[in-house]
Amino acid sequence: MSDNTFAAATVPLRWVGPLKISGNVAEGLIEVPLATYESPLWPSVGRGAKISTLCERGIVATLIDERMTRSVLLEADDAGTALAAARQLTDELPVLRGIVNDCSRFAELIAIHHQIVGNLLFVRFEFTTGDASGHNMATLASDALLTHIVNVVPGVRYGSVSGNFCTDKKASAVNGILGRGKNVVAELLIPREIVEQRLHTTAARVAELNLRKNLIGTTLAGGIRTANAHYANMLLGVYLATGQDAANIVEGSQGITHVEDRDGDLYFSCALPNLIVGTVGNGKSLDFVEENLTRLGCRESRETGGNARRLAVITAAAVLCGELSLLAAQTNPGELMRTHLRFERTASK
Amino acid sequence: MSDNTFAAATVPLRWVGPLKISGNVAEGLIEVPLATYESPLWPSVGRGAKISTLCERGIVATLIDERMTRSVLLEADDAGTALAAARQLTDELPVLRGIVNDCSRFAELIAIHHQIVGNLLFVRFEFTTGDASGHNMATLASDALLTHIVNVVPGVRYGSVSGNFCTDKKASAVNGILGRGKNVVAELLIPREIVEQRLHTTAARVAELNLRKNLIGTTLAGGIRTANAHYANMLLGVYLATGQDAANIVEGSQGITHVEDRDGDLYFSCALPNLIVGTVGNGKSLDFVEENLTRLGCRESRETGGNARRLAVITAAAVLCGELSLLAAQTNPGELMRTHLRFERTASK
Amino acid sequence: MSDNTFAAATVPLRWVGPLKISGNVAEGLIEVPLATYESPLWPSVGRGAKISTLCERGIVATLIDERMTRSVLLEADDAGTALAAARQLTDELPVLRGIVNDCSRFAELIAIHHQIVGNLLFVRFEFTTGDASGHNMATLASDALLTHIVNVVPGVRYGSVSGNFCTDKKASAVNGILGRGKNVVAELLIPREIVEQRLHTTAARVAELNLRKNLIGTTLAGGIRTANAHYANMLLGVYLATGQDAANIVEGSQGITHVEDRDGDLYFSCALPNLIVGTVGNGKSLDFVEENLTRLGCRESRETGGNARRLAVITAAAVLCGELSLLAAQTNPGELMRTHLRFERTASK
Amino acid sequence: MSDNTFAAATVPLRWVGPLKISGNVAEGLIEVPLATYESPLWPSVGRGAKISTLCERGIVATLIDERMTRSVLLEADDAGTALAAARQLTDELPVLRGIVNDCSRFAELIAIHHQIVGNLLFVRFEFTTGDASGHNMATLASDALLTHIVNVVPGVRYGSVSGNFCTDKKASAVNGILGRGKNVVAELLIPREIVEQRLHTTAARVAELNLRKNLIGTTLAGGIRTANAHYANMLLGVYLATGQDAANIVEGSQGITHVEDRDGDLYFSCALPNLIVGTVGNGKSLDFVEENLTRLGCRESRETGGNARRLAVITAAAVLCGELSLLAAQTNPGELMRTHLRFERTASK
Repeated sequence: MSDNTFAAATVPLRWVGPLKISGNVAEGLIEVPLATYESPLWPSVGRGAKISTLCERGIVATLIDERMTRSVLLEADDAGTALAAARQLTDELPVLRGIVNDCSRFAELIAIHHQIVGNLLFVRFEFTTGDASGHNMATLASDALLTHIVNVVPGVRYGSVSGNFCTDKKASAVNGILGRGKNVVAELLIPREIVEQRLHTTAARVAELNLRKNLIGTTLAGGIRTANAHYANMLLGVYLATGQDAANIVEGSQGITHVEDRDGDLYFSCALPNLIVGTVGNGKSLDFVEENLTRLGCRESRETGGNARRLAVITAAAVLCGELSLLAAQTNPGELMRTHLRFERTASK
Repeated sequence: MSDNTFAAATVPLRWVGPLKISGNVAEGLIEVPLATYESPLWPSVGRGAKISTLCERGIVATLIDERMTRSVLLEADDAGTALAAARQLTDELPVLRGIVNDCSRFAELIAIHHQIVGNLLFVRFEFTTGDASGHNMATLASDALLTHIVNVVPGVRYGSVSGNFCTDKKASAVNGILGRGKNVVAELLIPREIVEQRLHTTAARVAELNLRKNLIGTTLAGGIRTANAHYANMLLGVYLATGQDAANIVEGSQGITHVEDRDGDLYFSCALPNLIVGTVGNGKSLDFVEENLTRLGCRESRETGGNARRLAVITAAAVLCGELSLLAAQTNPGELMRTHLRFERTASK
Repeated sequence: MSDNTFAAATVPLRWVGPLKISGNVAEGLIEVPLATYESPLWPSVGRGAKISTLCERGIVATLIDERMTRSVLLEADDAGTALAAARQLTDELPVLRGIVNDCSRFAELIAIHHQIVGNLLFVRFEFTTGDASGHNMATLASDALLTHIVNVVPGVRYGSVSGNFCTDKKASAVNGILGRGKNVVAELLIPREIVEQRLHTTAARVAELNLRKNLIGTTLAGGIRTANAHYANMLLGVYLATGQDAANIVEGSQGITHVEDRDGDLYFSCALPNLIVGTVGNGKSLDFVEENLTRLGCRESRETGGNARRLAVITAAAVLCGELSLLAAQTNPGELMRTHLRFERTASK
Repeated sequence: MSDNTFAAATVPLRWVGPLKISGNVAEGLIEVPLATYESPLWPSVGRGAKISTLCERGIVATLIDERMTRSVLLEADDAGTALAAARQLTDELPVLRGIVNDCSRFAELIAIHHQIVGNLLFVRFEFTTGDASGHNMATLASDALLTHIVNVVPGVRYGSVSGNFCTDKKASAVNGILGRGKNVVAELLIPREIVEQRLHTTAARVAELNLRKNLIGTTLAGGIRTANAHYANMLLGVYLATGQDAANIVEGSQGITHVEDRDGDLYFSCALPNLIVGTVGNGKSLDFVEENLTRLGCRESRETGGNARRLAVITAAAVLCGELSLLAAQTNPGELMRTHLRFERTASK
């Protein structure tokens, strides 16, 4: 390892908000930290946050599901042997659960899925992992499961502890369909007056733009399970600010913005099925991360997983704020560019 | 904007290497900075770097192409009008080029592509943008082009300055097929002895794992234009260390690892068609970024774009180092977990 | 080859319509033959056809583009050699064009695209092919081009005459983005009264269903460049009835339905970028195919390619009719099932 | 409905084989009917069939799974209501099963999956459907389930009886990941001598081509869950010959060819996760279909679903024959074109 002049990348960070949040996990006025080199992100999310405080229920963030996954790869004698192995694993799920419990206090095996291609067997293990995002816990547990399988299942051999059917940090469809990370839907109902006065647009125009750009445009681009303008920006900001493995924005950014014009009021929602966040584990013990998680209310005494779920819904709410602000801006010719230029001039003064 | 306790996310950073690099852009022994919360990444990339120094040509990094894109969305009277508009734009390409030249010293319009869906017209502008990654330059130019189009082309109206056929930070196929960012292929030919002694595996086993995991496993996951183990990790590390807009790892991570067993020698390559990096622009004037870019040799006096191209091939080489190290480890049962545990124990001492 | 009891699969066929068609290729009242085992398809398309006759311009079918493709696969010494080869091919495009002209009266090479992965070079040749769908013409020409390349370009060797970057009969994004087959957009503007009386629904409800089902639902399914309800059904029906290679419905079915509520009138459009049809070649000399093509007006004396283009826009119009009818039915609870049951009862009497 | 000159598309049909088949469903030497306008398909599949008879176990076709699906679309008050509804449906699965049993003798509800986007709830019902492919049975059952849900679940309303998360005849990832149709893997182990003498190639060259073309090439094309050369051709041939809804080749063609060089012997396999076939229902009562199904052994007295499973594994075996033949041919420069030309000359004599 080389001599290290600078020991850190110091990414500029600002707290934005507060956002008004409700739903099945968190409630209240909550500020959000965003670390980014793209300074226009702060006022953009800030504008959405302000609007959330003007709406009756604020952003309603609903946690739908949570799990962390790892798929192992096994080589079988042939497809028939692979099928027999898959069936044996399904039948012996309680045994597999016991193995997982033995190697981790927090990991619980909740489901398995498999795929067979020729003589190859891919088994996707799905765990709950408490307040950790769970990458390492899942790998450790999968390692133990793999050792067990190779020892007791006839005709199968080690292929890889990870077979990419998991799938970590890759653009794919499996995570959205089978679940990986926290699945959160954030919704905001904005009265017509606020849409007009604060966003300088109408519900009809935002809904139309969402259809044309996020849904049709992304389909044209060959997008996969994704229909949004820029979830990745907000995710990166929150992830860096809270010590997350920010490479998980690859799958985290695959979400769907759904908008409705409700008699002039704007229904605006973001579905984020793959939010991979934790409040313990790698990166979480850095001083500024501790501080930020504490300020977010994610260091309190809660039931297992409660702090991570709180972080997930806050993250989803921040994503909604930025997405709303950008889409509204793009309904008006020239607004995006003017805002960027104005903010960057201000920032450089 | 709220009061800000910590003004930055300080992401731990280490210089790794040197890597031995050759090819059509850069040559020599070059160290690479990686900023990450995932500390096992450093020794992993470091192992690949060490191996590169033991191979005759080192990592041969070839720049294939470069461009930055933005697609505007236009509403036309109908598909026939959209088609006429698209033809007019193609015919008047020189006029469009002039408009771009007028609004930027560095941006050059090099190609346009379009898509028509019903009465909607999506036009994807492709630019070279000098040493900047070019997001803002492309948006500014597209804004000017859009204003021009709406003024001179009959029957078309403003839809959006961005129509997601660009596409920025979204998992899709268009960027790989039409190009966006630097397209770089990195290759390394590793003699059999080094494969065995340093990676504790064989070329045949790495090739087999690449086929089964990166190609078949990713296909099973519903992956889109991607076949690798963890490009996103290395990209994030370099991007944060050099002031890039790291949300671009979403498309940057969509690349293909191709491996061959050449009579026991290991041919290992990474194709990264969407490396979005710059050496000027947002984030590049922070002190540590200046320092890091300077140390990387990306602040020297070169022809326009030369510093950014250098950064691109260095990034690709770093990706190869990490990808090689992980794939080799996964050919051996238990090695990945042992390495992680050992390193994290060491790091926490 | 075995003894053959039945020498044919006799797929039931009915002529549906007439459809009212206008646009840049064909004009008039035209009936369409549909061969299918799924008899409810006939009244479904028939309903859409009837509606087209009640609308002022009928179905406006606009031909956007046409080409047939084949990608060859070359093995190069390394990526640098592959890049040099790709540049040489681009520079020598006139030579390549001459080679194509020498091996076919009708094929013209109009563009090439390439991809480089490690030491592999994929070159996608794009041709116009007159009135033929062009599969064989493209393969023949590519074979000649490949032989030439291997002979004159240094450091590259034969990989395969088809490298799947073409891509024929596979679910992918490349055909929509780069083009393959006829690209046709069909549009229909239906007055409010007809929507209500004939389709028993409203423009708003059809637009809403299209958003939710075809765009959001398909995105959730991990769809690739596709957003429609059942293009494949109509395509199969026309393809079988006119002697096409019906396996091309795989890519042909990847199209986008775009719907707008225009003050109560229904704007309904189908974008079909990959219609692969011909009026000469394999399957076209069977008696019933001759008869059907003649009745369709696709056996007349026209400029080269004119008959195939006519068939393409008629096919697109038929797709629109079936898509409209199904979507409208699905806006009403129970209607789809009732219609199916009623028709099948009638058919079995 | 118009006057109909020709009442059928008569697609030329030949019986090919016999194929040697074994595995968990069918055993023996079995001929296969292929209806196609592309006459070179017959000798191509015939060559593969011949080879299967020379291999010890022949083609081992393993049925992995079977199910038919339909996803309904519900509009909920908000995401929280959608989540409550999804949980209620999961809890009341026995009630839903009863509803399905009441509306069909053969359909059994075996699983449900859901997706929530904003206030939209997509519920995917999965059924076994006996010997029918099950489209209509699934729609009928879903119609009944939907009526029940709208009546008993608070806060949800009818959206559509089909929400495209099913997904029928569309290029997507969901069917491969969650299952739809018969999932069959076909494998053939070909001794080295036969590879050389009959296919004029080597196992190493076929494995290399499969990697480069089917896996890498398809990835480059933006393929989705697919890695093969031309499954669609064989599927279409069998589907038309046996009265299937051939539009299901869209998803049926999304499968993976996996090849290994086993010390010179060629391991060749085709994984087809979405074979949608039935031996009763629409199209199956036509005389030639009855005849063909009888000759295939799919009209015998078997346990429920046994005839359809037999047809599925035979279909998969036929796909393997054609895929093997084409891939082997493409390893040799010029062979594909020579074969096509020779056969078409012969055919036209």
